[in-house]
Amino acid sequence: MAIKKQQRSRSGVPLWHGRFDRSPAGLTQSFVESLSFDRRLYKHDIAGSIAHARMLKSAKLISASELKAIERGLKAIAKRIESGTFRFKTADEDIHMAVEGELTRQIGEPGKKLHTARSRNDQVALDLRLYLRDAVDNELLGAITSLQYAFLNLAEREGFIPMPGFTHLQHAQPILAAATLLASIEQLERDRERLLDCRRRIDVCPLGAAALAGTTLPINRNQVARELGFAQICRNSLDAVSDRDFAVEFVFDLAMIAMHLSRWAEDWVIWSSPEFNFVLLDQAHCTGSSIMPQKRNPDVLELIRGKTGGVYGKLLALLTMLKGLPGTYNRDLQEDKRGVFEAYDMVLASLTISADLVAASHLNPEAMARQLSEGFLEATGLAEYLVRRGTPFRQAHRLVGQIVAHCEKKGKKLIDLSLGELRQFSDNIRSDVHKVLDPSQLVKSYRSEGSAGTKEISSQLRHWHTVLASRS
Amino acid sequence: MAIKKQQRSRSGVPLWHGRFDRSPAGLTQSFVESLSFDRRLYKHDIAGSIAHARMLKSAKLISASELKAIERGLKAIAKRIESGTFRFKTADEDIHMAVEGELTRQIGEPGKKLHTARSRNDQVALDLRLYLRDAVDNELLGAITSLQYAFLNLAEREGFIPMPGFTHLQHAQPILAAATLLASIEQLERDRERLLDCRRRIDVCPLGAAALAGTTLPINRNQVARELGFAQICRNSLDAVSDRDFAVEFVFDLAMIAMHLSRWAEDWVIWSSPEFNFVLLDQAHCTGSSIMPQKRNPDVLELIRGKTGGVYGKLLALLTMLKGLPGTYNRDLQEDKRGVFEAYDMVLASLTISADLVAASHLNPEAMARQLSEGFLEATGLAEYLVRRGTPFRQAHRLVGQIVAHCEKKGKKLIDLSLGELRQFSDNIRSDVHKVLDPSQLVKSYRSEGSAGTKEISSQLRHWHTVLASRS
Amino acid sequence: MAIKKQQRSRSGVPLWHGRFDRSPAGLTQSFVESLSFDRRLYKHDIAGSIAHARMLKSAKLISASELKAIERGLKAIAKRIESGTFRFKTADEDIHMAVEGELTRQIGEPGKKLHTARSRNDQVALDLRLYLRDAVDNELLGAITSLQYAFLNLAEREGFIPMPGFTHLQHAQPILAAATLLASIEQLERDRERLLDCRRRIDVCPLGAAALAGTTLPINRNQVARELGFAQICRNSLDAVSDRDFAVEFVFDLAMIAMHLSRWAEDWVIWSSPEFNFVLLDQAHCTGSSIMPQKRNPDVLELIRGKTGGVYGKLLALLTMLKGLPGTYNRDLQEDKRGVFEAYDMVLASLTISADLVAASHLNPEAMARQLSEGFLEATGLAEYLVRRGTPFRQAHRLVGQIVAHCEKKGKKLIDLSLGELRQFSDNIRSDVHKVLDPSQLVKSYRSEGSAGTKEISSQLRHWHTVLASRS
Amino acid sequence: MAIKKQQRSRSGVPLWHGRFDRSPAGLTQSFVESLSFDRRLYKHDIAGSIAHARMLKSAKLISASELKAIERGLKAIAKRIESGTFRFKTADEDIHMAVEGELTRQIGEPGKKLHTARSRNDQVALDLRLYLRDAVDNELLGAITSLQYAFLNLAEREGFIPMPGFTHLQHAQPILAAATLLASIEQLERDRERLLDCRRRIDVCPLGAAALAGTTLPINRNQVARELGFAQICRNSLDAVSDRDFAVEFVFDLAMIAMHLSRWAEDWVIWSSPEFNFVLLDQAHCTGSSIMPQKRNPDVLELIRGKTGGVYGKLLALLTMLKGLPGTYNRDLQEDKRGVFEAYDMVLASLTISADLVAASHLNPEAMARQLSEGFLEATGLAEYLVRRGTPFRQAHRLVGQIVAHCEKKGKKLIDLSLGELRQFSDNIRSDVHKVLDPSQLVKSYRSEGSAGTKEISSQLRHWHTVLASRS
Repeated sequence: MAIKKQQRSRSGVPLWHGRFDRSPAGLTQSFVESLSFDRRLYKHDIAGSIAHARMLKSAKLISASELKAIERGLKAIAKRIESGTFRFKTADEDIHMAVEGELTRQIGEPGKKLHTARSRNDQVALDLRLYLRDAVDNELLGAITSLQYAFLNLAEREGFIPMPGFTHLQHAQPILAAATLLASIEQLERDRERLLDCRRRIDVCPLGAAALAGTTLPINRNQVARELGFAQICRNSLDAVSDRDFAVEFVFDLAMIAMHLSRWAEDWVIWSSPEFNFVLLDQAHCTGSSIMPQKRNPDVLELIRGKTGGVYGKLLALLTMLKGLPGTYNRDLQEDKRGVFEAYDMVLASLTISADLVAASHLNPEAMARQLSEGFLEATGLAEYLVRRGTPFRQAHRLVGQIVAHCEKKGKKLIDLSLGELRQFSDNIRSDVHKVLDPSQLVKSYRSEGSAGTKEISSQLRHWHTVLASRS
Repeated sequence: MAIKKQQRSRSGVPLWHGRFDRSPAGLTQSFVESLSFDRRLYKHDIAGSIAHARMLKSAKLISASELKAIERGLKAIAKRIESGTFRFKTADEDIHMAVEGELTRQIGEPGKKLHTARSRNDQVALDLRLYLRDAVDNELLGAITSLQYAFLNLAEREGFIPMPGFTHLQHAQPILAAATLLASIEQLERDRERLLDCRRRIDVCPLGAAALAGTTLPINRNQVARELGFAQICRNSLDAVSDRDFAVEFVFDLAMIAMHLSRWAEDWVIWSSPEFNFVLLDQAHCTGSSIMPQKRNPDVLELIRGKTGGVYGKLLALLTMLKGLPGTYNRDLQEDKRGVFEAYDMVLASLTISADLVAASHLNPEAMARQLSEGFLEATGLAEYLVRRGTPFRQAHRLVGQIVAHCEKKGKKLIDLSLGELRQFSDNIRSDVHKVLDPSQLVKSYRSEGSAGTKEISSQLRHWHTVLASRS
Repeated sequence: MAIKKQQRSRSGVPLWHGRFDRSPAGLTQSFVESLSFDRRLYKHDIAGSIAHARMLKSAKLISASELKAIERGLKAIAKRIESGTFRFKTADEDIHMAVEGELTRQIGEPGKKLHTARSRNDQVALDLRLYLRDAVDNELLGAITSLQYAFLNLAEREGFIPMPGFTHLQHAQPILAAATLLASIEQLERDRERLLDCRRRIDVCPLGAAALAGTTLPINRNQVARELGFAQICRNSLDAVSDRDFAVEFVFDLAMIAMHLSRWAEDWVIWSSPEFNFVLLDQAHCTGSSIMPQKRNPDVLELIRGKTGGVYGKLLALLTMLKGLPGTYNRDLQEDKRGVFEAYDMVLASLTISADLVAASHLNPEAMARQLSEGFLEATGLAEYLVRRGTPFRQAHRLVGQIVAHCEKKGKKLIDLSLGELRQFSDNIRSDVHKVLDPSQLVKSYRSEGSAGTKEISSQLRHWHTVLASRS
Repeated sequence: MAIKKQQRSRSGVPLWHGRFDRSPAGLTQSFVESLSFDRRLYKHDIAGSIAHARMLKSAKLISASELKAIERGLKAIAKRIESGTFRFKTADEDIHMAVEGELTRQIGEPGKKLHTARSRNDQVALDLRLYLRDAVDNELLGAITSLQYAFLNLAEREGFIPMPGFTHLQHAQPILAAATLLASIEQLERDRERLLDCRRRIDVCPLGAAALAGTTLPINRNQVARELGFAQICRNSLDAVSDRDFAVEFVFDLAMIAMHLSRWAEDWVIWSSPEFNFVLLDQAHCTGSSIMPQKRNPDVLELIRGKTGGVYGKLLALLTMLKGLPGTYNRDLQEDKRGVFEAYDMVLASLTISADLVAASHLNPEAMARQLSEGFLEATGLAEYLVRRGTPFRQAHRLVGQIVAHCEKKGKKLIDLSLGELRQFSDNIRSDVHKVLDPSQLVKSYRSEGSAGTKEISSQLRHWHTVLASRS
């Protein structure tokens, strides 16, 4: 944020200023503060502090009544933040100090014991891990499944229509429209798996690493970890305060989601053009033009595509931040949260609105059917016909190439050719050839596992039904 | 931003909804809105609208009294936004609609004529260009000069002390400390030049390109451009609404500034370590530790370094957004402003606090002097001595290598060697050799233009004094 | 490259090993060598050495006959490299050592004096600057102009046909096809300007900065600079060996070119689809399919688009390399050349083949014409008609929106509406309205500067003819 | 590569040219070819073809004798490529065509049947998956383990010495040197886990997806997958030819390795400076200076750090390539291999040489010990002492802050203070306090799990011994 003159005055003194004989200028304060963006960690910060206090009590570093005061105090603060009545002060610098400072103002002495045997270095790592575990468990996995359902429902409802399958944005072979929607489900499934893998690396408790070296006090890190539901604790205290792998990996997983959404959005933007007209978007996901009264622009799809760069940028911001950074904790790490939060917000919003948009969209079978006769979609089917009749594939490929060239010269489609014309190219062609020259018949004859025809698409739909149903 | 349920309710109907028979869902509204970040364009949006209205009047598309109402209405809105009494509504979607909508609510019919012969496509391009021209002229150039002054002042005040010059973070040759500060001034000067070059590409007026095709109405684009102080108008209307080169280039220029600051910050972070102790930071630019009471951490320098990734990320966000984007205007372009504004805020803040920090810092001549005797800094001086006495350079280089190896074996410094010892390696060495074996003398004998010794550093200081003085 | 076992054996001893008592392992040698990619600098390295040697002679650091031997020796080496008879050895590590080592093997003693008062730190900076100046002057500017010509020629030859202008990939307003080609020329013109700006920052001579501190020898840096045609010398020796701004800026300029090409390629890939069919590519720029005999894929356009990422990646590589790098020279900088060379090769190849492709392509006026009647392209023209007759723009916009909705309900085009039907919406509509309801007429009535209609497009064509002609 | 005129002539006709009536220009051929970089896939391409042929035979699409001819022919080609006697021709465009074309030249008709029921689209996806699975299994996992061993051995051999632990590059608390090496092992362990996770997504067989739609021929995809050792087959044929997730994830995993190496290299570059002198590098991993005879530069570490940008760049290149790319196969995807191969080469080389370098390096206990008395490393220990005696942590923190300030004013160390002086600050201080004021004693008293003191470090060493031993 731009530094404004009025921000230079300060309204409080940070807690760690016991030794400094003069207060930091407001300029520094506004430059170094993270409270403006890390306040969203408050719930996890407080949960971590309660678990920490309970352990301190077990370790006899605080008394039962001190624990009680701390717990009650922290819960009250949580409630005030939740309800919007807590007043954050920039002078508190970060969420940790904002909470602990207020706690001490409220409950006195016991509050001063809360930070025993911990540092903000391990505390912030803890908070971020708790936050991201929540983000995966309670938001992202669900949003992914919802979008998969939306694709699945559209595939079932409207997907059993033949359309031109594209490679290089050129007509390639006829496919069932559902095949394209099922491909998106596959991509999202890998996104889900990656998040679950990342979750294993998030789910490790750093608390107790303190500043970097651990502590001489008799704490019990495993107790805290158990209390907070972690699968394990960080094995090395220097690594514990230094490690942001889980955050970078999380943002990478988001970048992959964004990439997948951008490819689907691109397809549908193209399909929404009047020239294609393959997909009909709901008006709720389009906007008009301030100058052209007739426009119905696929703005939501465009923004999904456009935000991809923002997510990539966050990934590269984190990687750059960490490049060549000396070991353990350096203040540079504070910038990690900006990247993580913004990328998360963007991708979660994109996933959510995508599910909405897909649910409200329709395919346009007439437009797809119109294009089936363009571009010799049935050429590969014809080559495979020849192969079945014994022509080596390369020769069949060449022959069909010549037949297509012949059609182009004559301005004909393959299906328009007489058997006689066809047999000029190969004796292997018989009267049954016309079955493979109709694209809407051809999609019924794909046989290979996973192929884009009737039988295999049905099988994929059943598969996803079972899988997605098992998640709810 | 995360989409919250409460954001789904809408408080108004966007202006362009004449044709749609049902209102967009709140989800879409919060996904597509840019008002939350483009409102900072308000001043430039209003300035652009006033210039546009004046031209409409010249073109007889509005009357004198309509112009008067529009001007008065827009200025009143500007004042309300400035004073914080204007209430933005998400339903207005962007700053353009927020301003125009309010204008029409205030002044009625004439407000409905303001958007004649323009589109949001050319309007937003105009606003961003005006904003960035301001950012360069009124903020960045000044912030760069201030930081250059801070380096210059420190160089003059404390820079005439010898220190080890490093390459590969190893001792290389003795230099004057000022040389390092002057190197930073050079970097910033190139940053300044790049911004001025970019400014030429910012300073082109897109207004009148309308949606993409221009207009059949008798407007005068040159009049608007003159009114707003532009050097020229965009020559092609499709390009005018499509072009974001100026914004990407602006962010690239910021990335280069961030890179330069990160290199200087890295040097000073290392120099602040107890092992080096070459630079003494003011307490106002350090912070303490929540666990270690003795710490004085160079947090400001670390954050300057850490923010570099954020700025790079914005550059890549913009480049990614534009990759493969179809021509003219697509809604993806809306995301440009996020990148531009955040990168600008980060870099302007970093420049500003850097000037403050440099002004409050001191070099530590004792620590630098202590290190002068480490690492055979005078070896190159000795090799050049031999060259002056006729030894071919490669041979001199090899001889001095052997002398250094000899010193290492004996645990001696070069200056500890007797003339006899030295002459075992080369007859070319005479009694005057000891002049080149004292690093603090050596810095007086550098002769080449731009070198890091007394004479040339003085000349550089004079140069920068003249140049910087001419800017204020 | 992957380190193979056989690479661990060495075939020579690097020149700088006077002091080391044991030779570096082959592993290190293959890891640190740059000869495999910096050998392409040979011409500029040798030119720099000759200029340096001439200066050494003027400074009496070498004799006239030594200079003669050096010049002759270097020119002989250049000739051998050119003809492919020079044998590079990895043990020489880089092009500088490869050339200097061979020189000394050929001419003996004088060769050992060539490296007087210079270091590889300033030498490599010099070579890269000379190389990039050449790349701009002799390759890139020409390749840009050629591509601009290709667009201009196509615009003149085939561009005066009306087509749907798109925003959001939706039909917006009718435009002349030439307008899209002229927009590409504008983008390339900015690319050209950026390269020329960058060239000013390339065109500064670092030689004489030596390792970092300059030298005690009586050299004349300005003489070398003049000899090599540089506009000025680097003012600060530390900055001279540290600065890679010019290389990063060069790659950024390439990234912008790649981005522009990717946008045009995207448009044309879409236009090449059977659904659009707006552009007809030459077979020489398409390839077939290994399985589908009928395919004609726009592979060249796709690869131009696909290489964009590679160029962006190189930009990020350079920026990351420099982030947080300590001042002056660090070996990391060696990696700069990989990025610069590969990005340059990719962009130069893309520019070159693009010119070829555009020259061999044709627009398809029939397909464009067919689409003119889709999507109410003339709606804005109708709104402007109403404005000219006194309807406030916002009201006109709303009215036309209603008319379009009426058409959609009735399955009609605007031009199909009777005057009576039209006048139900506004009394302002008269019998002359039908002139604005024909897209191919509408393109004749755009009036604003730079607009996409007949008059302004003609003027743009004239402009570019004059400008491009002045360059040859 | 730059397109040279001589490259425009062609030496052969690509296989797929049955239909085209004129041959592509050499310019196109050199622009679209990938043979120059995909030839390294030859082994995997041939293995895939053999498995495919065996399945074709099972499916009765080829005969037993045809299979025999194909197998023999392919193995002979593999041998010729291995031995360097195979002559690649650019006209073959890619490794697939180079192999199949030569096969047909050698064995005639049966060769023309090999491409039955497959496309280059699924074939290249197969090859890349096989290649990357090999890269993980046979190269990267081993290289990671080797480097972990090198760190472990150094930690055991020399790591039980106290040194200043740093945060913010400032002295924080005393730690055992081994703790820093063990932190690197942790990072590498996560890198290993990520690669294994990625491997699961690599290990899916795409063959049989053909161009995008599957095939009407009676193939058996599961048979091919089993033959090649794949865990499963791609479920959706469109996704199979479109998916490059595994490649991007692979490069991301490499980027994380590069990032980790860059952080360690940064530490060690700093530790190699004369000011620190904490680590002593072997001469084999340093290089000298061409001008400064005394230099011993940590070039290998710098290049490891410097290459990080290159790897990040490849990640961005892939992500950018995929952004907004339409579904299924587009030629852009060809560029994926550049990024994957170069990133892989860089990271594998860095891992390999890092293990070498660590094995040959030594820590410098004297230099570390010298620094132990700087920077009040024992302050936290003192605060924890007070906590153990009942002082609330925040108060203890403040008190120690005051004691440190007192020391600074008096120019004393903490250990120099008399008990009387200390007790002026707190009655809680007793005569046993001096045990915590000696850093080399303090490292023995860290108690928390994973901390940087004697007991926990020993336990970590044991852990890693067991784990790493189980891998060989």
